[in-house]
Amino acid sequence: MSATASNGTRIAEMARQAGARLAGRETPFLRDCWYVAGFAGDFGETLKPRTILGLPLVLYRDGEGCPVALSNRCVHRSFPLSKGRREGDTIVCGYHGLRYGQDGRCLQIPGQKNAPNGIGVKSYALREQGPLVWIWMGDEPPADAPPLEAWVGDAGWPASNEYFHLEANYLALHENLLDLTHLSFLHAGTFGTPDYALAPYSVELDEARGRFAVLRTVSPTRLPPVWAKPTGLEGRDAARIARSEFVGPSAHVVNVRFEGLDAPVEDRPDMQIKTAHLATPETAETTHYFIHHARNFAQEDARITEFMHEQLCAAFREDVEGLALVEEMVAKSPPDERYEISLASDRAGVAMRRWLLKQVEGART
Amino acid sequence: MSATASNGTRIAEMARQAGARLAGRETPFLRDCWYVAGFAGDFGETLKPRTILGLPLVLYRDGEGCPVALSNRCVHRSFPLSKGRREGDTIVCGYHGLRYGQDGRCLQIPGQKNAPNGIGVKSYALREQGPLVWIWMGDEPPADAPPLEAWVGDAGWPASNEYFHLEANYLALHENLLDLTHLSFLHAGTFGTPDYALAPYSVELDEARGRFAVLRTVSPTRLPPVWAKPTGLEGRDAARIARSEFVGPSAHVVNVRFEGLDAPVEDRPDMQIKTAHLATPETAETTHYFIHHARNFAQEDARITEFMHEQLCAAFREDVEGLALVEEMVAKSPPDERYEISLASDRAGVAMRRWLLKQVEGART
Amino acid sequence: MSATASNGTRIAEMARQAGARLAGRETPFLRDCWYVAGFAGDFGETLKPRTILGLPLVLYRDGEGCPVALSNRCVHRSFPLSKGRREGDTIVCGYHGLRYGQDGRCLQIPGQKNAPNGIGVKSYALREQGPLVWIWMGDEPPADAPPLEAWVGDAGWPASNEYFHLEANYLALHENLLDLTHLSFLHAGTFGTPDYALAPYSVELDEARGRFAVLRTVSPTRLPPVWAKPTGLEGRDAARIARSEFVGPSAHVVNVRFEGLDAPVEDRPDMQIKTAHLATPETAETTHYFIHHARNFAQEDARITEFMHEQLCAAFREDVEGLALVEEMVAKSPPDERYEISLASDRAGVAMRRWLLKQVEGART
Repeated sequence: MSATASNGTRIAEMARQAGARLAGRETPFLRDCWYVAGFAGDFGETLKPRTILGLPLVLYRDGEGCPVALSNRCVHRSFPLSKGRREGDTIVCGYHGLRYGQDGRCLQIPGQKNAPNGIGVKSYALREQGPLVWIWMGDEPPADAPPLEAWVGDAGWPASNEYFHLEANYLALHENLLDLTHLSFLHAGTFGTPDYALAPYSVELDEARGRFAVLRTVSPTRLPPVWAKPTGLEGRDAARIARSEFVGPSAHVVNVRFEGLDAPVEDRPDMQIKTAHLATPETAETTHYFIHHARNFAQEDARITEFMHEQLCAAFREDVEGLALVEEMVAKSPPDERYEISLASDRAGVAMRRWLLKQVEGART
Repeated sequence: MSATASNGTRIAEMARQAGARLAGRETPFLRDCWYVAGFAGDFGETLKPRTILGLPLVLYRDGEGCPVALSNRCVHRSFPLSKGRREGDTIVCGYHGLRYGQDGRCLQIPGQKNAPNGIGVKSYALREQGPLVWIWMGDEPPADAPPLEAWVGDAGWPASNEYFHLEANYLALHENLLDLTHLSFLHAGTFGTPDYALAPYSVELDEARGRFAVLRTVSPTRLPPVWAKPTGLEGRDAARIARSEFVGPSAHVVNVRFEGLDAPVEDRPDMQIKTAHLATPETAETTHYFIHHARNFAQEDARITEFMHEQLCAAFREDVEGLALVEEMVAKSPPDERYEISLASDRAGVAMRRWLLKQVEGART
Repeated sequence: MSATASNGTRIAEMARQAGARLAGRETPFLRDCWYVAGFAGDFGETLKPRTILGLPLVLYRDGEGCPVALSNRCVHRSFPLSKGRREGDTIVCGYHGLRYGQDGRCLQIPGQKNAPNGIGVKSYALREQGPLVWIWMGDEPPADAPPLEAWVGDAGWPASNEYFHLEANYLALHENLLDLTHLSFLHAGTFGTPDYALAPYSVELDEARGRFAVLRTVSPTRLPPVWAKPTGLEGRDAARIARSEFVGPSAHVVNVRFEGLDAPVEDRPDMQIKTAHLATPETAETTHYFIHHARNFAQEDARITEFMHEQLCAAFREDVEGLALVEEMVAKSPPDERYEISLASDRAGVAMRRWLLKQVEGART
């Protein structure tokens, strides 16, 4: 074996050892955490099946407007409750007619006087926040609040929503969002401008709170069309001040502030966009990827909402397609050959994965 | 954990323990048993491949009219014999030309003077009974007779046949047939009339013979069209006397007797229908579902045969579709979450599954 | 159990034991060996993905015309390099822009000053030989020369090429080629003439060199059209002298010499065809099947090239289809029922598989 090959082997071995200390595809999901179960509109009159953290659920909304999420498997003979029918706020199983309430309790069994106490399907705590409905899949009592702050659903932040079925593990999406170097490559045709990709950045790693952020200021710069048009900064020197933050296994928030440099500082309007990237594992290889995108300027202009939505989603679709290629490559590589070599630009992503593995291991003991 | 959740966990644990004493998807098939290999017409001039109990077979009929079932895998290099050609009563493998007789013996090997003694594919004992051809897959000598009685193929019982490829384990079909409570739900649109579903029933559990039956008499009642039309009991008070019996892992017979209550008892004609539901496992997740349906009245009226066939098969298709949904739900549920809670109405089905597990365990020791 | 059944069981057991001494589907690939990676035209300007011996590779050709084969998985985050872009002779990963040279070394990492020494993807040695590009996947230094001799690419041997994606293990193809008895059956409609199949043959087993050959001379005979037309021996008594030789896990060469018996021996022109059957395992169940077919007569006649190509490929397609049927049958047979009984005609194939298992076991210790 040549010296180079031997060096390569040694690096691969080190990469494998380093990878063992990070959360990855094989790591169980952190269950005690709020995840987005769906948009508000996913909870309605109809019974909607959706698998979350590997568990098949049925989603609906009761007569008082409260969202409901139950295990979709009838505990009797495993019929999907989503294929049954609603009667008022209850679900009647389409096979043998077991009736379940919003809390999952079995209320009625045809042919029996009473449904024995304790029989039922699992029900899950939900929290509605503007357009988002959060779900708590863990055994511990739910945390007080989902990880997103008050701007979600706020009238001062007009917004749009998108959903992608991502054919990849959710951690690959989180790493993607904590990394700025891919903008110039995966998003060469959309919002990756060369100077932005090469600009210095800083990292904030808050292990205590489980928050990991990447910050980058580019100034002066010329904005790409997706930002230049809505801000009115086309053809003008501008500052682009971005903070991209992992706020938990289910959410990552990108905040970008824009300033026109040709105006005095005191006259520059507060122009921000916020994008919540909401990753809900479906299985280890697939993810419900919800996006909530808002801004605090040009609030009355619906065309801007539409324009930004289209532009952004074109870029996010590139992520969705790129991450699916990664997942496919991992699946077809022999297990021994799946090691990853992390770079300086992965510092935030690697810290996040190291933190997450500790959380999962802590939750299991 | 709340008291309710803890109660739910305890019930799940009890359900898992109870399930371990019942035959289920993981239980090996009972091989020493007659199963339906096909309808008479499945055995003909052509070489028909069919997998039974997980084993690929080839079916045909020899020149004297005797059905033949052989292992479909040429023992030389695994070519499917069904892709070879018939020469007289023998099969010539399409790859290297090995010739096999109806008894599976290799009769000729091109390029060799003799086929060594003992080389061959396994052949399986068959019994033809009217429209059905039964197969014995076990190592023990075949039992004397298949489980169905003389009405099958009897001229006094005009009949029709159907085949469904059921995308579910065969035990789910057997349980379905031993359960009457699903009629009002899965078959709400076909033959599940409300009074019938709510009527009391009795159960006969004959562990010694391996027979498990559910009996229900509804009287007076109004028959649903599928029965009312052919019996001439439309709009009249009638009795509907049903016996639904598991007669072995391969067969379940439903017998329904109809009486018009407005006639003196001695003037009521003997009107019965018999439906044999014949479940032949293909794999653990799929089943050959043969149906043989007969009646002993209105024997000359082919339109009635056709009418009843269509009506019944519409309902059986609901079972086929419903059981496939169950199988899919089981497949996507984590193994730990697949427990089943059995109800009072499952008494016969559970007794059958308990008996079957004992048979399989007995056969293996 | 009857005496016959017991005999069958004993034979099956012996077949299982014999099979354990032969290379089969479960045997790891022999890595220290030249395999065909592709035709010359597969290496070009574009980045072509191809999986070889279970490893995803990317193939291209550099500016100096040298073919390149690299691991297709970016070692950073597993993006397929074949979805990146070329810049000169380097590949730039489409995700984060890592740049790799033809030797697999990572030359540049955006956002870092230097790419650390030793980081890179594995590169594989290649040898170009006429229309073929060979690859060395092993850890040992490459053997001097690929197994085919000088006729490949020689101007005196006009040739044609074909590729099949074979849905079967590569050993099934090698056994197929070492066996002449299947010609009359699998190729009944193409080049299997009855007298040829029944003619005697001899076998050369050279364990020391790993060469296994089957030789058959049929004389006098009438040639099938595929040979009769191009040789001008239609309707004439001819000799057909064939040597079919396994020259390594990646290649099998068939040489056929034709003579017109009605001419004096000294006036008979040298008419040979050579067909290289090149088997490159993609996975354990699929194979890249390259064919290079050449002749040393009628060299100027392109119509003969075309005619022979069409005729031969029609027959090879029968192999491809037949072997896929075998693979499918193996996959659906229970593992315990997959034993193979070998015949006298398998002598060369069995010797080859026994030799190959020893090579693989030797390579692992």
